[in-house]
Amino acid sequence: MSVEALEKNKTIDLRKRHIGPSCKIFFSHDPIKIVQARGQYMYDEKGQRYLDCINNVAHVGHCHPDVVKAGAQQMELLNTNTRFLHDNLVMYAQKLQATLPDKLSVCYFVNSGSEANDLALRLAWQYTGNKDIITLENAYHGHVSSLIDISPYKFHQLSDAEQNQFVHVAPSPDVYRGKYRADHPNPASAYADDVKDIIDKAHKKGRKIAAFIAESLQSCGGQVIPPMGYFQQVAEHVHKAGGIVIADEVQVGFGRVGSHFWAFQLQGEDFVPDIVTMGKPIGNGHPMSCVVTTKEVAEAFMTSGMEYFNTFGGNPVSCAVGLAVLDVIVKEDLQGNALRVGRYLSSQLEQLKRKHPLIGDIRGCGLFVGVELVKDRVTLTPATAEAQEVIYKLKEQHILLSADGPHRNVLKFKPPLCFSTEDADLVVEKINFILTELEEAQGLKEHGSPNIETEGSKRKLLTDENGHQKHSGLIHSKGSDQGAPRQFKQNKRLKT
Amino acid sequence: MSVEALEKNKTIDLRKRHIGPSCKIFFSHDPIKIVQARGQYMYDEKGQRYLDCINNVAHVGHCHPDVVKAGAQQMELLNTNTRFLHDNLVMYAQKLQATLPDKLSVCYFVNSGSEANDLALRLAWQYTGNKDIITLENAYHGHVSSLIDISPYKFHQLSDAEQNQFVHVAPSPDVYRGKYRADHPNPASAYADDVKDIIDKAHKKGRKIAAFIAESLQSCGGQVIPPMGYFQQVAEHVHKAGGIVIADEVQVGFGRVGSHFWAFQLQGEDFVPDIVTMGKPIGNGHPMSCVVTTKEVAEAFMTSGMEYFNTFGGNPVSCAVGLAVLDVIVKEDLQGNALRVGRYLSSQLEQLKRKHPLIGDIRGCGLFVGVELVKDRVTLTPATAEAQEVIYKLKEQHILLSADGPHRNVLKFKPPLCFSTEDADLVVEKINFILTELEEAQGLKEHGSPNIETEGSKRKLLTDENGHQKHSGLIHSKGSDQGAPRQFKQNKRLKT
Repeated sequence: MSVEALEKNKTIDLRKRHIGPSCKIFFSHDPIKIVQARGQYMYDEKGQRYLDCINNVAHVGHCHPDVVKAGAQQMELLNTNTRFLHDNLVMYAQKLQATLPDKLSVCYFVNSGSEANDLALRLAWQYTGNKDIITLENAYHGHVSSLIDISPYKFHQLSDAEQNQFVHVAPSPDVYRGKYRADHPNPASAYADDVKDIIDKAHKKGRKIAAFIAESLQSCGGQVIPPMGYFQQVAEHVHKAGGIVIADEVQVGFGRVGSHFWAFQLQGEDFVPDIVTMGKPIGNGHPMSCVVTTKEVAEAFMTSGMEYFNTFGGNPVSCAVGLAVLDVIVKEDLQGNALRVGRYLSSQLEQLKRKHPLIGDIRGCGLFVGVELVKDRVTLTPATAEAQEVIYKLKEQHILLSADGPHRNVLKFKPPLCFSTEDADLVVEKINFILTELEEAQGLKEHGSPNIETEGSKRKLLTDENGHQKHSGLIHSKGSDQGAPRQFKQNKRLKT
Repeated sequence: MSVEALEKNKTIDLRKRHIGPSCKIFFSHDPIKIVQARGQYMYDEKGQRYLDCINNVAHVGHCHPDVVKAGAQQMELLNTNTRFLHDNLVMYAQKLQATLPDKLSVCYFVNSGSEANDLALRLAWQYTGNKDIITLENAYHGHVSSLIDISPYKFHQLSDAEQNQFVHVAPSPDVYRGKYRADHPNPASAYADDVKDIIDKAHKKGRKIAAFIAESLQSCGGQVIPPMGYFQQVAEHVHKAGGIVIADEVQVGFGRVGSHFWAFQLQGEDFVPDIVTMGKPIGNGHPMSCVVTTKEVAEAFMTSGMEYFNTFGGNPVSCAVGLAVLDVIVKEDLQGNALRVGRYLSSQLEQLKRKHPLIGDIRGCGLFVGVELVKDRVTLTPATAEAQEVIYKLKEQHILLSADGPHRNVLKFKPPLCFSTEDADLVVEKINFILTELEEAQGLKEHGSPNIETEGSKRKLLTDENGHQKHSGLIHSKGSDQGAPRQFKQNKRLKT
């Protein structure tokens, strides 16, 4: 198959005719036609290279040869369902389990993060006998109807949004813009207590909690890093109410956070969810996903009397691909790379922050980093148009980044884990330039001198002076600027 | 990767430890370990060949080299999401559309039949503004929670089954065992009128119909072939009520019925559903599926304001695989083969029926054939244990068949479309032998002599004398035995 079969205009025409208009394309006024990819780079039909800072699906690098080979070889041999015994299925389950705490020992293989989260809800409903779900503000858990119901990120897009009675929305544990901020004496307890309040109110109405579900780090919700100890306290409240805790690792799992394999592990060894759901990176693009839970939950699900059969889930090809992804992560120390390059990227961005008033917060773990743009560091007015402008200007520079969060003002870094310090330097340099232009146009004053130190300068930057929490792998701006004097004005609105 | 990495017992142990116990295996007391497959044959770890009569996923034959090659080549080149332009996506949508009536022109690519049916419900809800769904008795539409709700086949398995208020179950249009049978003057209208009654009752309660959903031919529901004209009349009633019609082709599409590419087309050109959902065979095992609908439904979905994004759906690898499957169906005339071999298989089974009192009904189209076993052709008492015995005995003969339907007494043929007349001869011969043994053990009397004519005998059998409806491609026992005298006794129960 040739890399380009149709003229770009023809591709666009056919897409308009035959693909659902709700399926959005990046840069819709001038979309990109990608025909090839390798590692952290994508190539358009003219051979132009793009640096991919956003594809958390191509986890071990686009078209990784080991993964391609494993998939292709197994496709030639056998691809069938799990009603027959197959070694790939059990070896993969065993290897995946080995990355998790012991009590998370039973796997269900499915085809997408959405299927995984829907199954997690079914497990919770069956195990607890309860119905109600607590979800977080701005959460996104998938596109099937049960998950739209528990995804404020989605259901708030509806003109006639109607929240189901069994869904309770807890505040996002966002210490930058949320209800309790970095200056709060104990934001973890405060946010967890809000969950407890929700439980108490539900109980008063005679309702019962089946589950609390949250991404271990909120992704679409704005790259939110919950304060340490939050999940432990939430789990205590939820368990006491007879519910269980679902950690959605669809976007953030598989070593992305650098210091740990799973993002929920950032909270410490004393937090173990009852269900973990996986997705995007699990097969490096191959459609597959997984739900892992405890023996108790799995046995309760079986006692319902209903078989669980998933036509494609756990087929030998998907499992061969999944095994290859796990092998590559280890072989190429991609988790270590995520830690190192992630720290470097964050430190470089921290330096940008010192210079650019538009940057309100830098937060992240490993290669999961958010840059929140604000028009004002006191009021935190979201710089939404500016974030869009950064994304568009970066595209012109052949760098792919996106903006998300409830205000679409958080630049999201979640590149393939083979991302390098040189890649980080390139994107930081471009952002520096774009922000300078934007701030000049708006009459905003830069803070001090740029003085961006790169890896090339060989100076050590990976220290606590950059605000890193060495042991947890967490990085978070300390909010020290929040009380800073307002030293710039907003005098111009950009068009999106 | 070697074809067998673990001893079979080790595979079983690990499966027990790490795979959800709700995930059932075939022949759980002595499961089969399949390590390789090709065409309509599967091979266990000892090299023993099994004839596959049931895998409607491996549609163009297990591990078809053209499909494997297309997938492997695209995996090497690019696998990313639909937020970029790609030719595979639009070429595949165009080619798929060409198999459908013109008005079904807009595609949404997703990962499984379940995702497809869930999206179909979301489209219906949004387009109509209504909530209620009419589904058929014994229907199965998928494993995500929204589909369990509309799948009596599943929710009746629950000990605490509770039917949602918005779900209405219409009688299965089964003219063999259903409410209106072959001796009814107009079963199509009678079954459709039952749908109208449901609509009227719902309206009286102030409820409104969003959609009627049905498999074009019920599969798990017992290989049910609805009477001609049924869907036209149902569509009229449903449209009048402001609802739309969803044809679930997940199990029966892509040429399986032989005379047509889609099973809904068996009803005639005057029936066009508003939404068609696809699945299992679409990628020959690759996890993918599709929803196709009209421009009007797609535009209404867009006006909700909610983007539809599916991480893996429509990726270039899935589309390359899908394109290859369509090409192979044409290149190898697999639809024609389904028609020819399907007719031959049905005619051979009809001959078995003349001999074996345990066979109550033979019905099917192309390579979608059901053999319903009964203990008594007057009372139609399901011969459930006998059906299970046939399946187990066939397994001993290295033939894979399954039994389904609400009484698990319908032998289901839905093999890869490369199934041959020799394959048909083999399985019919074995079933003949097994039924003879069973009937002897039960003191049942055979009708007349066996006289099974095979393809090898070169005698023409594909005529109307076998009860075929030549033009529609439909085959259905005429129910002529239903009034026959009871000529045998049940004197022994088999254990399952």
